Amino acid sequence: VESRRRQIAVVGAAEASAQILALAEEVGREIARHGGTVVCGGRTGVMEAVARGAHSAGGLTVGVLPTYDRDSGNPYLTVVIASGLGYARNAVVVAAGDAVIALPGEHGTLSEIALALKLGRRVVGLRAWSHLDGVLGADDAATAVALAFAP
Amino acid sequence: VESRRRQIAVVGAAEASAQILALAEEVGREIARHGGTVVCGGRTGVMEAVARGAHSAGGLTVGVLPTYDRDSGNPYLTVVIASGLGYARNAVVVAAGDAVIALPGEHGTLSEIALALKLGRRVVGLRAWSHLDGVLGADDAATAVALAFAP
Amino acid sequence: VESRRRQIAVVGAAEASAQILALAEEVGREIARHGGTVVCGGRTGVMEAVARGAHSAGGLTVGVLPTYDRDSGNPYLTVVIASGLGYARNAVVVAAGDAVIALPGEHGTLSEIALALKLGRRVVGLRAWSHLDGVLGADDAATAVALAFAP
Amino acid sequence: VESRRRQIAVVGAAEASAQILALAEEVGREIARHGGTVVCGGRTGVMEAVARGAHSAGGLTVGVLPTYDRDSGNPYLTVVIASGLGYARNAVVVAAGDAVIALPGEHGTLSEIALALKLGRRVVGLRAWSHLDGVLGADDAATAVALAFAP
Repeated sequence: VESRRRQIAVVGAAEASAQILALAEEVGREIARHGGTVVCGGRTGVMEAVARGAHSAGGLTVGVLPTYDRDSGNPYLTVVIASGLGYARNAVVVAAGDAVIALPGEHGTLSEIALALKLGRRVVGLRAWSHLDGVLGADDAATAVALAFAP
Repeated sequence: VESRRRQIAVVGAAEASAQILALAEEVGREIARHGGTVVCGGRTGVMEAVARGAHSAGGLTVGVLPTYDRDSGNPYLTVVIASGLGYARNAVVVAAGDAVIALPGEHGTLSEIALALKLGRRVVGLRAWSHLDGVLGADDAATAVALAFAP
Repeated sequence: VESRRRQIAVVGAAEASAQILALAEEVGREIARHGGTVVCGGRTGVMEAVARGAHSAGGLTVGVLPTYDRDSGNPYLTVVIASGLGYARNAVVVAAGDAVIALPGEHGTLSEIALALKLGRRVVGLRAWSHLDGVLGADDAATAVALAFAP
Repeated sequence: VESRRRQIAVVGAAEASAQILALAEEVGREIARHGGTVVCGGRTGVMEAVARGAHSAGGLTVGVLPTYDRDSGNPYLTVVIASGLGYARNAVVVAAGDAVIALPGEHGTLSEIALALKLGRRVVGLRAWSHLDGVLGADDAATAVALAFAP
């Protein structure tokens, strides 16, 4: 069999500005163009935009939801994991990524970045979070995705 | 976007006879032919055989692993969720299925069937488990998959 | 410091007959008399009765709840773990026990027994479950607790 | 029955200076003097020091461990929850607290603070973390514990 597709976890706010949503969508398209799979929290905002971007470019998308409601995911998910784990699912989202791209967000996003760093995952902060120790900064989607795919 | 693909969780022993492995592989092929996605525990035995079957028929496969080791999955997984949750991942495997097909197994498989029934998922026992209250019995892969896809 | 108290996970139905509840309460009292701590799912039925029994005998009780609602536990819990994990908390309940005593129950109880056996915990079935491979049978509370405390 | 004891989750580094360990121990003693229960991650460093302090003052201590190894907890735990959940246990630690006190730490501690804020728990940063939005600052153990117990 071929080698495993690279999986990139993308995290960020459930409610975001049009500018941030456009950025997330571009991240999703770029990941798909690189042949990668998007993993996200499955809901609205950045999670929906990145899935929409990847989906529009023919990529695979996985949403790990906090509840058991399989229909609560956004419409751009190829795979829905209705985990029922509550916020413990944040640990699963980042563990499922070979690398993590973090867009602007709040406490949930911060928890995912911190868990990812604890797990030793590479974390790229896209126009956010680069002040945190261990987070690589990027100013545009192409750079962020390139960093996430770098060996 | 198109409607969500149906996801079928398939559970069973990590070590199994050639006969059971062939049965699991046929289940995987049948799920793929129905346009469904296989969700499994990602490891050896029934988990590997069902993924191999689905993969060989062009289907998608998801493995939810108990550890953080993304490379411990079998080679037929499209998506690897290295959950790190230990046996609590058994609850995630079945929650991720719209229905569950259970092949012969031991305590781990039994825990997945019981969790699936608790969650209200339809559970089909394939040449096993049909003595349990709430489990539908099937004797061949095609019947099991047809039951899992029934509305 | 003194050696760690033995922790006994007690599982069973959230709704049960007066006879079963009396039996669960006696199990709780016996565990407390042995100096052990009761771990349970924190809710009603067998979970509440075993906690009430242990509490009445001066013992410690721990409830691991499926939701984040700390006030949803029964009133006899010394420690409330509002896990938010959904049914994945069943794995935590039994993992927290040095041994497990299972009273009559349904699918949730069966999942806990199966997870406990998978984890290698000793499982004692009290007037139930002794037909399952690996479960020790007992007919009264004193015998069940003695088996749970046996080295 | 009497009302439930207040549970305070205390988080911080697994390796810390003598000064920080002394501070954590004082936090544990203060929580016990207030009649509260300490919840922590169960391991070394701040987790062990806070448990030792509470234990020395006759208080209850709970450790939620990431592995299934019940013997990996520090010796000052009244209750050991060997969760097996990996870093997802960080969400359980803070969910189990009515309030959270955070001492200096690294990515694991940061993840716990962020998850606690997401869950709406009051978070007190003791000589650390008070730059984070939503974290109350305190400079000594008595103040931190008073804030954690405030209505």
